[in-house]
Amino acid sequence: MAELLYTGKVKQMWSTDDPEVLRVVYTDQATAGNGEKKDNFKDKAYLNNEISSLIFQYLEKNGVKTHFIKKLSDTEELVKKCDMFPLEVVTRNIAAGHFSSRYGLGEGRKFDTPVEELFYKSDDLDDPIMNESDAIALKIATAEEQKEIWRLSRQVNRLLIELFDGAGMDLVDFKLEFGKLANGEIVLADEFSPDNCRLWDKKTKAHMDKDVYRRDIGDLTSVYEQVLARIEKTLKEN
Amino acid sequence: MAELLYTGKVKQMWSTDDPEVLRVVYTDQATAGNGEKKDNFKDKAYLNNEISSLIFQYLEKNGVKTHFIKKLSDTEELVKKCDMFPLEVVTRNIAAGHFSSRYGLGEGRKFDTPVEELFYKSDDLDDPIMNESDAIALKIATAEEQKEIWRLSRQVNRLLIELFDGAGMDLVDFKLEFGKLANGEIVLADEFSPDNCRLWDKKTKAHMDKDVYRRDIGDLTSVYEQVLARIEKTLKEN
Repeated sequence: MAELLYTGKVKQMWSTDDPEVLRVVYTDQATAGNGEKKDNFKDKAYLNNEISSLIFQYLEKNGVKTHFIKKLSDTEELVKKCDMFPLEVVTRNIAAGHFSSRYGLGEGRKFDTPVEELFYKSDDLDDPIMNESDAIALKIATAEEQKEIWRLSRQVNRLLIELFDGAGMDLVDFKLEFGKLANGEIVLADEFSPDNCRLWDKKTKAHMDKDVYRRDIGDLTSVYEQVLARIEKTLKEN
Repeated sequence: MAELLYTGKVKQMWSTDDPEVLRVVYTDQATAGNGEKKDNFKDKAYLNNEISSLIFQYLEKNGVKTHFIKKLSDTEELVKKCDMFPLEVVTRNIAAGHFSSRYGLGEGRKFDTPVEELFYKSDDLDDPIMNESDAIALKIATAEEQKEIWRLSRQVNRLLIELFDGAGMDLVDFKLEFGKLANGEIVLADEFSPDNCRLWDKKTKAHMDKDVYRRDIGDLTSVYEQVLARIEKTLKEN
């Protein structure tokens, strides 16, 4: 019988008959400020599932190993079971959000080379930023695993900059999570949606991501619908 | 005429007749918590100057390029003028202090490989920890300069672990600062004293550094005197 393995802020993970396969169930919830702000949005589960599935399939097609197996329903997908690294791997192409506040800079400065940051996934410690050598010393990842995580995350950045550019959006920054399959292979896991990236319209610089909710500057559902429509169109044309 | 160029928390920098040479004047002040706690200790200027001079000479002798020219008096030294990187380069061999609190760990865990951390020297921003790619993106250092900074800092760690080991102390962690000479060469600058490192007695694990002041667990002057006496003895024997 399917067992609830994990309840995150916006997703649940269930076991399946296959011990190596999990079922992800998206919820309509959005949170901000490490869960301090919390609301439900109509169709959010559907939109995140749809967007993330399309992006994981696009990445797989272009050679990135991921946990994704298939979309199961409007709000569910099947993924390979992973041993997750408790790391949030952040890539930034343009200064925004935490980066800007940490260094007292405005938003919008484009970097010559992407910024790569690690955060230790720990609600108790409030997800502190960490250096690679911290992660290695704490045995969160070996030096070799860390290298593979950066390699994958750079590959994802290159591919997604291209995808979103075609869809009229700047990929400002994004957060990835990685896991290890039973065979030891490191794969991209979690989800990719406007929940964990920043997308700005290339022309108007309008926010097309969860910042509309974090900052109360727009309607989450309609913004996510636009993102989905643009990605679908771009993927169809290519 | 000599001009006061910079007043730090515990040192002053003065110009000299030679535009490429500065005079460092140590003070008896100790501070903690980014200057929130502040006190004067008899002989601290003399002790820091003496310890730092001995260590910089030991490092120079063993191939590390530094800004150090010579000790000028009990509380003064001459150094080469540098363009300083606004970075605190921290190396940790054993978990303690901020590292332990950041990750909710006890103190005393020895790392298999040293932890290397960068902090952005900015009192306004409270010296935030930063990743290497942040420093590069913010043009604080180029990728090449950053590489040289790590190379030097690893060399310093190897040499000082050996020196302090001989003197019956564990080098727990330390903070370095680097600068660039007029010819572009990157050199170790600032000071090396119990103000910016942690030293534990190898047998008793007693604190022999500024933690005795930060944590009110001992007399700063007598602890620094012990450190100096032990280093002098070890350097003489070798």
